[in-house]
Amino acid sequence: MEHGLLGNNTMVQVGVIVRDIDKAAADYAEFFGIDKPQARLTDSHDKTLAEYRGSPTRARAKLAFMDFGSLQVELIEPNEQPSTWREFLDRHGEGIHHLAFVVDGMKEKVATLAGKGFALQQKGEYTGGRYAYVDTTDTLKTIIELLENDRS
Amino acid sequence: MEHGLLGNNTMVQVGVIVRDIDKAAADYAEFFGIDKPQARLTDSHDKTLAEYRGSPTRARAKLAFMDFGSLQVELIEPNEQPSTWREFLDRHGEGIHHLAFVVDGMKEKVATLAGKGFALQQKGEYTGGRYAYVDTTDTLKTIIELLENDRS
Repeated sequence: MEHGLLGNNTMVQVGVIVRDIDKAAADYAEFFGIDKPQARLTDSHDKTLAEYRGSPTRARAKLAFMDFGSLQVELIEPNEQPSTWREFLDRHGEGIHHLAFVVDGMKEKVATLAGKGFALQQKGEYTGGRYAYVDTTDTLKTIIELLENDRS
Repeated sequence: MEHGLLGNNTMVQVGVIVRDIDKAAADYAEFFGIDKPQARLTDSHDKTLAEYRGSPTRARAKLAFMDFGSLQVELIEPNEQPSTWREFLDRHGEGIHHLAFVVDGMKEKVATLAGKGFALQQKGEYTGGRYAYVDTTDTLKTIIELLENDRS
């Protein structure tokens, strides 16, 4: 599965937007009989260099991760600043926001996607890598997240 | 991962509600560089015995399946009859409708879930098995589908 615009079709994550991550994490833990995942706040802008629709944003989110087979569920509670997360919550309410894939060569992939009409919606850095949300809503009915992890 | 209300936490499917399955299947195929999956109509009620919120329904849908690593994406174009699919489309528009898990002992699992406050929303038979959609929207922010496949 090395074809297509991402160069990799193995889905690694489903992202879920929630209003109250502590409540949602507890509810997931109870339903699936797993330990309640610890929510953590994303880094501040000086570290993430986050951009939303081409402009720097002070958007942050609380995140919590759980494993379901080879797939991860990511709970996301956004703050009030402009972001793909906040926009989804304001428009649609809580629900599944994105499907994520690991890529090599983030810059080239984002450029290729933009050339095909799939605009970059948000990007940022995290410890050990970077992410990009691409607006594929019109065609794929969900947002696609690209994840690039630095080689250690 | 044999705990929790499902007895199995391996996610096997992400279900996406679409208005035009031929268009969506073509768009997925192009984006991911895969063959366009063939859409097929679910069986009629005499075979599916489909029930939605406790009443028989003539709901049917066109379905198309694609593999992404160990996970399957299911595209679903519902007809106009009452169903969890139609309800989602009318309320939320196109988007990710459910996460699916394979279970053993569908009847017991559905009863256990109902006892915990997770009502059965829709169920039906398909060749080789049966499905049930459980309303977990308040807590998990998405619907959970249980799939039980007959042993051959």
